[in-house]
Amino acid sequence: MDDFLFGYDGFEPGAEGLREALTSTGNGYLCTRGAAEWEDADDVHYPGTYVHGGYNRETTILGGQPVLNEDLVNLPNWLVLMLRIEGEDAIRLADVALLSYRHELDIRNVTLVRQLRFRDGGGRETTLKSRRFVSMADVHHAGIEWTLVPENWSGRVEVISALDGRVSNRGVARYQQLEGRHLDPVSPRTWGPEVIALKAETRQSNLYISQATRTRVFSGGQQLPVRRTLYQMEDYVQQVLAFDVHQGAAIRVEKMVSFYTSRDPAVSDTLVRAATSAARHDEFAASFGRHSGAWDELWRVCDVRVSGNERVQLLLRLHIAHILQVCSLHTADLDAGLPARGLNGEAYRGHVFWDEIYALPFFNFRMPEVTRGLLIYRYRRLGEARAAAREAGWRGAMFPWQSGSEGTEETQRVHLNPLSGRWEPDLSRNQRHVNAAIFYNIWRYFQTTNDLEFLDRYGAEMMFEIARFWASIAHFNPERERYEIHGVMGPDEFHEKYPGAPEGGLRNNAYTNIMVAWLCDISGKLLTLLPDSRVEALRARLDIGADELARNTATSSGSTGSCVRRVTTRTGTRSPNRPTR
Amino acid sequence: MDDFLFGYDGFEPGAEGLREALTSTGNGYLCTRGAAEWEDADDVHYPGTYVHGGYNRETTILGGQPVLNEDLVNLPNWLVLMLRIEGEDAIRLADVALLSYRHELDIRNVTLVRQLRFRDGGGRETTLKSRRFVSMADVHHAGIEWTLVPENWSGRVEVISALDGRVSNRGVARYQQLEGRHLDPVSPRTWGPEVIALKAETRQSNLYISQATRTRVFSGGQQLPVRRTLYQMEDYVQQVLAFDVHQGAAIRVEKMVSFYTSRDPAVSDTLVRAATSAARHDEFAASFGRHSGAWDELWRVCDVRVSGNERVQLLLRLHIAHILQVCSLHTADLDAGLPARGLNGEAYRGHVFWDEIYALPFFNFRMPEVTRGLLIYRYRRLGEARAAAREAGWRGAMFPWQSGSEGTEETQRVHLNPLSGRWEPDLSRNQRHVNAAIFYNIWRYFQTTNDLEFLDRYGAEMMFEIARFWASIAHFNPERERYEIHGVMGPDEFHEKYPGAPEGGLRNNAYTNIMVAWLCDISGKLLTLLPDSRVEALRARLDIGADELARNTATSSGSTGSCVRRVTTRTGTRSPNRPTR
Repeated sequence: MDDFLFGYDGFEPGAEGLREALTSTGNGYLCTRGAAEWEDADDVHYPGTYVHGGYNRETTILGGQPVLNEDLVNLPNWLVLMLRIEGEDAIRLADVALLSYRHELDIRNVTLVRQLRFRDGGGRETTLKSRRFVSMADVHHAGIEWTLVPENWSGRVEVISALDGRVSNRGVARYQQLEGRHLDPVSPRTWGPEVIALKAETRQSNLYISQATRTRVFSGGQQLPVRRTLYQMEDYVQQVLAFDVHQGAAIRVEKMVSFYTSRDPAVSDTLVRAATSAARHDEFAASFGRHSGAWDELWRVCDVRVSGNERVQLLLRLHIAHILQVCSLHTADLDAGLPARGLNGEAYRGHVFWDEIYALPFFNFRMPEVTRGLLIYRYRRLGEARAAAREAGWRGAMFPWQSGSEGTEETQRVHLNPLSGRWEPDLSRNQRHVNAAIFYNIWRYFQTTNDLEFLDRYGAEMMFEIARFWASIAHFNPERERYEIHGVMGPDEFHEKYPGAPEGGLRNNAYTNIMVAWLCDISGKLLTLLPDSRVEALRARLDIGADELARNTATSSGSTGSCVRRVTTRTGTRSPNRPTR
Repeated sequence: MDDFLFGYDGFEPGAEGLREALTSTGNGYLCTRGAAEWEDADDVHYPGTYVHGGYNRETTILGGQPVLNEDLVNLPNWLVLMLRIEGEDAIRLADVALLSYRHELDIRNVTLVRQLRFRDGGGRETTLKSRRFVSMADVHHAGIEWTLVPENWSGRVEVISALDGRVSNRGVARYQQLEGRHLDPVSPRTWGPEVIALKAETRQSNLYISQATRTRVFSGGQQLPVRRTLYQMEDYVQQVLAFDVHQGAAIRVEKMVSFYTSRDPAVSDTLVRAATSAARHDEFAASFGRHSGAWDELWRVCDVRVSGNERVQLLLRLHIAHILQVCSLHTADLDAGLPARGLNGEAYRGHVFWDEIYALPFFNFRMPEVTRGLLIYRYRRLGEARAAAREAGWRGAMFPWQSGSEGTEETQRVHLNPLSGRWEPDLSRNQRHVNAAIFYNIWRYFQTTNDLEFLDRYGAEMMFEIARFWASIAHFNPERERYEIHGVMGPDEFHEKYPGAPEGGLRNNAYTNIMVAWLCDISGKLLTLLPDSRVEALRARLDIGADELARNTATSSGSTGSCVRRVTTRTGTRSPNRPTR
């Protein structure tokens, strides 16, 4: 058993969605689901491509009620590579007899491999091996390589290589009543005989996305002359490459892709940039070599070894590779949070919840720059968190349960209960514990790295503002002689209100109270860590008086007491707020 | 003499352009020239607003020849605030009798103050004091405060508060034959009764810029009810505030402004963001207080004191304030270089030359994050520098003489000789010494900060690639037994070729050769500074063999010898390539 190889034998339509998510290829900037290059989105296949921060807001009118949602946008499909044999329809899995089929993720260098042998309607047997990667070395590059062998025939084939902007967000069944169009077409473009490019813009958030690709065919080591035919429209561009193949002789097709958005540094027009970059792109082998070298460097730092159980070792590495596909050193330079479902699908709409609390300890020791970057995503949204607290009548900063582009609360107001089929109020925004998680994440990062500059410039300010929020939402109950926190939802993400209660929220959630008592205690000590001159500046800027410091200490000792009372609530049957795909 | 107050008495039309540049207000993100709020761009006044990275490319067809230039775009004018007394034309300096006039920059908190007393055509005497700042605390905010006193009259006034997108780049006389339109209008918008907003997009580079403003009038401490009239079109929006004033009674007008671009983090739609932000904006006093506090923090770190000469002390502080307006801690988070003329005007088109070599030593000791950010601007453009070297037949990285959005060579192909009035070839791109400067800047940053993480992740790679470029452009002259470098232009930025020579460039420019010998020497030692595992990864990634390291050492000792020969060249009368405004 190769402890870096995760794979499936045989094609199973019902499992393909999960397989696509698990065999995604990404580099911490861009991530694409492991859909077959030759399949369109349908009930079985869902080619989806996502970038950090690629959000867009759309409003759906549901029975006269405007429902505004922010989504991580499914971007134009750069995978499209189809095979047409002797003028017949392009090959699809459903239309051929599969003689063998293997679908693998090579975890060592996050490469998706599909190897299949099929018999088409005309009795021709063909072997196709597809390899693809999203480069961990060159963040804007990706590549697909096909190796084709006509086993029992010779003839003319056409390879269709396209960039397809006719996509929408429809990966999650539960969201399908909601508006899923997020892209406006801008234009296609050609760049010399080999490069085609496509530009689109998100409808509301004005993010430009451009992709360009150069497709070549090789026989032996030599580039094969092919006949190229172009078709372009505003949201789709394709080249058809026609050439002859001979029984038993392997042919290689390389589709090298460049990808830019208008949020990338050092870019003027994204379309020109992508096209220039695709024209300059190395061949597959050289580009793959750099990608592979970058993963070697990553594994030297990130591998975790366990002995005695190969399956556990394999799955551990799969998880590590997944985290690194979503958050790598490249991510540290972006304005990126860690979406609940990574960049591997549309569940949770690409929103950032509190999941980072599980991933950051991994990064703290291995690539602390990544933690730092993800925490700065929060810092950049501190203004919105302050506004949210103010508007709710609290002080300090109240970070949202679901965070997206701007750090405003993106939790939907209504959600579809899949059991009843009804749209119901969604009260899950009361999961204020995300604020404790952010505090905890900053503190653990600092404890691990001793990055005082971060604490000074970003961390302490967030920690004080979070502590201030909790101090203001906590109130003193003179009967019980302790502080209490009401109206929140706990980290089970499930119990949202007391049975029959008109409003959401529980009283004295144990986890929340423990975290708050702990963080108030830490925040009291925080000032002693910074240089005196910085403490002065920070206290002046945040207007922290001596009385406020004292109150924090009181809250801390008070609710340490109260939190031992367990919150025992029942809310009847409730659907979890998170969708399952 | 207040050693933080830089000012002028009396209005001089001929000096206004220079005064506007010197009294700019900026925060390292956004910078606006010190033009009077009530003046349009003309031969005397030039309100200009610029942000880091706000570039756009336009082509001018000059006698059938396309000339492509990249400019730092003059953004919509947010200053517009005009006073109309009793229905007459809005007050302009040219139309009134100035009884007194003072134009100041308060360096301590970079606040522009204009204080004037004037008599209009109707014999009315009015005092107007204008204060404005671009917030060093809240990077997207700015504010203008007017204090108006009708000295010998009472009556009705109108204050026109506008955002004006009908602007172009025409601040430099020498560029006026070239295309200066860089903005496409998107839309105006209102947000409640008080806020107006405007959105524009750069024509080629797809940068969205939105501004919003809230204008209020105060009498004593109370907000004065005013009649508001709106006028909006696609590239201009204004509100006219009408109210009564009484002889001797001061009235305050506050115009608070928010400013966002689509490159800002944590922003979805820039227009909504700017409008929300303007609606939430503090009053002038509170916002100014935070701004002022941020400058206090800066001066604690950045002040340089000299004794014995107050004028020198004042000018030194003026220069420090200017540097900080262009590059502050806020800049460190952007993808920003240091433009040759800062963000204070349109000379040099906002391009990044080698001027940072003078500014970085200041930051290295005081705010090394700023140096780090400016060097990462170079790192992000390393790919283009590699492509440029490759296309010129060299190895390694050849950074451009003039760098803009993408790090491609932005030096114009032709330039206007103001003496002859003719367009001539511009050969100044041969100033390859910018590559030595970048190497030097990285090394000095590292020596000062010992930031090994930077060296490891960014610095060493740039240094090796620069050294590799020089090693490939240098050739061994067996007659003189030394390495020589031909075809370059020296740091005088003036002598571009030998008299009568068909091609540009000089041989063995002394400064260049000395710098190259030095940097080859340093690069040989560089590997000993990094951990072994990193050296291995870096050598693999850059494909540095033992023979190449040896050649560098040879170039180093060889050209140390050759560089003592002074390059004595005469090129006849040549205009300097840099414009003067």
